[in-house]
Amino acid sequence: MSKKQIYKPKPISGFPEWLPEERLIEQQWLDHIRKTFEAYGFTSIETPCVEELDVLLAKGETDKEIYTLTRLQAEDGDDKDARLGLHFDQTVPFARYTAQHFNDLTFPFKRYQMQKVWRGERPQLGRMREFLQCDIDVINVDHLPLHFDAEIPAIIYEILSGLDIGRVQIKVSNRKILNGWLESLGLFSEDMKAIIFRTIDRLSKEEFMPLISGMREALEKHEDNNSLDAEYITDSVTDFINIARNDYSSFEELEDKLRSTKNIDTSNVIFNEGIKELSFVLDHLSHLPEGAVVADLSIVRGLDYYTGTVYETNLLDIPEFTSSVCSGGRYDDLAGSYINKHLPGVGISIGFSRLFDVLRHNGYIKTAARCPTDVLVVLPSEDQRTQSMETARALRGRGFNVETYHAPQKIGKQIAYAEKKGISYVWFPDLGEVKNMATGEQTAAKVETWQK
Amino acid sequence: MSKKQIYKPKPISGFPEWLPEERLIEQQWLDHIRKTFEAYGFTSIETPCVEELDVLLAKGETDKEIYTLTRLQAEDGDDKDARLGLHFDQTVPFARYTAQHFNDLTFPFKRYQMQKVWRGERPQLGRMREFLQCDIDVINVDHLPLHFDAEIPAIIYEILSGLDIGRVQIKVSNRKILNGWLESLGLFSEDMKAIIFRTIDRLSKEEFMPLISGMREALEKHEDNNSLDAEYITDSVTDFINIARNDYSSFEELEDKLRSTKNIDTSNVIFNEGIKELSFVLDHLSHLPEGAVVADLSIVRGLDYYTGTVYETNLLDIPEFTSSVCSGGRYDDLAGSYINKHLPGVGISIGFSRLFDVLRHNGYIKTAARCPTDVLVVLPSEDQRTQSMETARALRGRGFNVETYHAPQKIGKQIAYAEKKGISYVWFPDLGEVKNMATGEQTAAKVETWQK
Repeated sequence: MSKKQIYKPKPISGFPEWLPEERLIEQQWLDHIRKTFEAYGFTSIETPCVEELDVLLAKGETDKEIYTLTRLQAEDGDDKDARLGLHFDQTVPFARYTAQHFNDLTFPFKRYQMQKVWRGERPQLGRMREFLQCDIDVINVDHLPLHFDAEIPAIIYEILSGLDIGRVQIKVSNRKILNGWLESLGLFSEDMKAIIFRTIDRLSKEEFMPLISGMREALEKHEDNNSLDAEYITDSVTDFINIARNDYSSFEELEDKLRSTKNIDTSNVIFNEGIKELSFVLDHLSHLPEGAVVADLSIVRGLDYYTGTVYETNLLDIPEFTSSVCSGGRYDDLAGSYINKHLPGVGISIGFSRLFDVLRHNGYIKTAARCPTDVLVVLPSEDQRTQSMETARALRGRGFNVETYHAPQKIGKQIAYAEKKGISYVWFPDLGEVKNMATGEQTAAKVETWQK
Repeated sequence: MSKKQIYKPKPISGFPEWLPEERLIEQQWLDHIRKTFEAYGFTSIETPCVEELDVLLAKGETDKEIYTLTRLQAEDGDDKDARLGLHFDQTVPFARYTAQHFNDLTFPFKRYQMQKVWRGERPQLGRMREFLQCDIDVINVDHLPLHFDAEIPAIIYEILSGLDIGRVQIKVSNRKILNGWLESLGLFSEDMKAIIFRTIDRLSKEEFMPLISGMREALEKHEDNNSLDAEYITDSVTDFINIARNDYSSFEELEDKLRSTKNIDTSNVIFNEGIKELSFVLDHLSHLPEGAVVADLSIVRGLDYYTGTVYETNLLDIPEFTSSVCSGGRYDDLAGSYINKHLPGVGISIGFSRLFDVLRHNGYIKTAARCPTDVLVVLPSEDQRTQSMETARALRGRGFNVETYHAPQKIGKQIAYAEKKGISYVWFPDLGEVKNMATGEQTAAKVETWQK
């Protein structure tokens, strides 16, 4: 006999997969997320994983790395006009879907989407190249009520606090507060504003003084600096940051602090709109436990997409998870690249695979069973196969997940199988008894009345 | 203001997507399939959609069209040793997964997998290029009991008969019956056997006489024809086919018919093994309704993969669905290309996307709601927002999917929203009443005791 050629497979960096016992937990988590989205009336859509490159790039260059597709057996000219790529997020496909099916959708359109996305990152970065995201968004035509800005943190809190991974803190801000305040400083150029945003963004990770003086220098040297008062701006930023970094017992206290600070001009219209919106959002989340949702004016979240409410979320008891597990906010227009409609929206995205992998890797996820089976029905002898299979069917009819053991092997071997797979109960149809594998107790039981 | 550049998206042929109301039904179906798999103790795995090309091609050339991946922004040399492709089925990834995690799995390993697969078909064929499959397989080391061959049709029947798509018929055969009989005819060459298999396979679609004479000619002309008796073979095939095409009240009747036919030699060992195995499988499915599972010796299902039991499934009341909706069988060795272990298995695959699309397209799927919401709580005025949100939370706490209307608009508009989305109940927290949208009836209701 000729020797078989064997290609020993190895994991591909950036494409994670889990063992069955881990997958069981992942499924429980995903079920919980989906159930919560649906409890608030969000409806699922699923788009193909593949989009035209023209769609993926319609907004212009993207910094996301895209995988393009080529048919292995393509003949010359076959794919000339079919430039396809894997989607790198769920926002672009959602926007494309909305534009394409606009007349068939009911607005406000509340959708959730739980799919894999791909990013052709350089392998050596150790980043995931295939991962699952769980997104919700609400969009409406022309105007979207603030109601939804307050609904999203309630959903996210319900999801994350239901996963038994410690305290969850959602940080909320409103881009209008920063934008309005910067306008009041005479900063209208996007470039100049970006200098301040970057400084605020880096504050949580870097030292205060070098950041501030670096910022001042950058402002002074900038070509858009129309004789702005860099000293006043620096003082204002310093005061703003100091206020933003503090804790407050209420948003009113934070607002009062801002309004009573000399170097912060709180008369700007946009600024006050932002304060009012953020206040509304926080007010309508007051039913959540203390500390579940806090105002944090230092949240920046990208420079050009979000226009109002912004969210970040931290897991306070998971030190290994340092960044935001779930972020998002309000944007002015979802699908302007694909349709001539004005569609403002608000949304958030859970980076599921990264969350699951970090928790798994650091031992926060306790696996138990290796299969969904509740009960193993033993097969004492070939003669009793019909009885065993009937027992299994009857238990299934009552909602249990049941296996019949597959061969009339020694009972000890059948019990060992249940133990190895983490099956909680072993049923003996010939004896009319069931064994609780956790306690070792074996008691009389009737199929018609048995409960776990 | 500069005019916006708009790229109007269009569907990409072969990459289907559904509207929210269709997606709701798809989710119900997938939930039902998953629940049934789990009721029999099958556990989920999910593999990356991407595999190394070396893995995808380890078995040698495949007739499946593969999409390979290229990073759009790859620099020279970046991807030299990372030749990646999208998986074209779930069998290859399952085999690779089993080989890679062999020591972490418990055998017999019963797994299900519900993922999308991709085939880079020529666009003009109108075939799906991205579609969802639902697979189950059981594999074991060295020997797999026949128990599982009988379990799989029971699962498939429970799944398909639960979808309200009319009568389901699972056709079962055993490759050993055909193989043994062909051996008894002196046909050992794979090439010669293939001539007979192809003839049997085409019988359901084409005319009998031309097929049979074409077959005889092909046998006579074949280089492996070591002075075989083409006339006897043709007679035997004719008799076999005539028997296979008939209906029988029991498998015993079919067996008796074969054994009493002059031109069919039923003494072959392999043939008799096949009869015994098929008989075992049918015996242990006798609890299913009459006609749910039938023996059909004309099933061929590929020439080189299956070695024992084979399955095909027909939807008897859906004339538009002419081919098998779900097929599979027993194979000798799952993962021989990746690991030096002998892993026989039995499995089946539901071509979900094609099934769903054909039924949808032909009007067999009745959509109703456009969202999962059970109850819409109205917002009579801004003052009553807290009351409305509290009512919604309380109803959610009792397991209902609930939306609060997002703005204090006219009640008629709020009710119209519920109607358009197919929400069944509208709740009036100020009145303590609920309106049943189907009947129009509005009655007093308490959150704490209300039932749908």
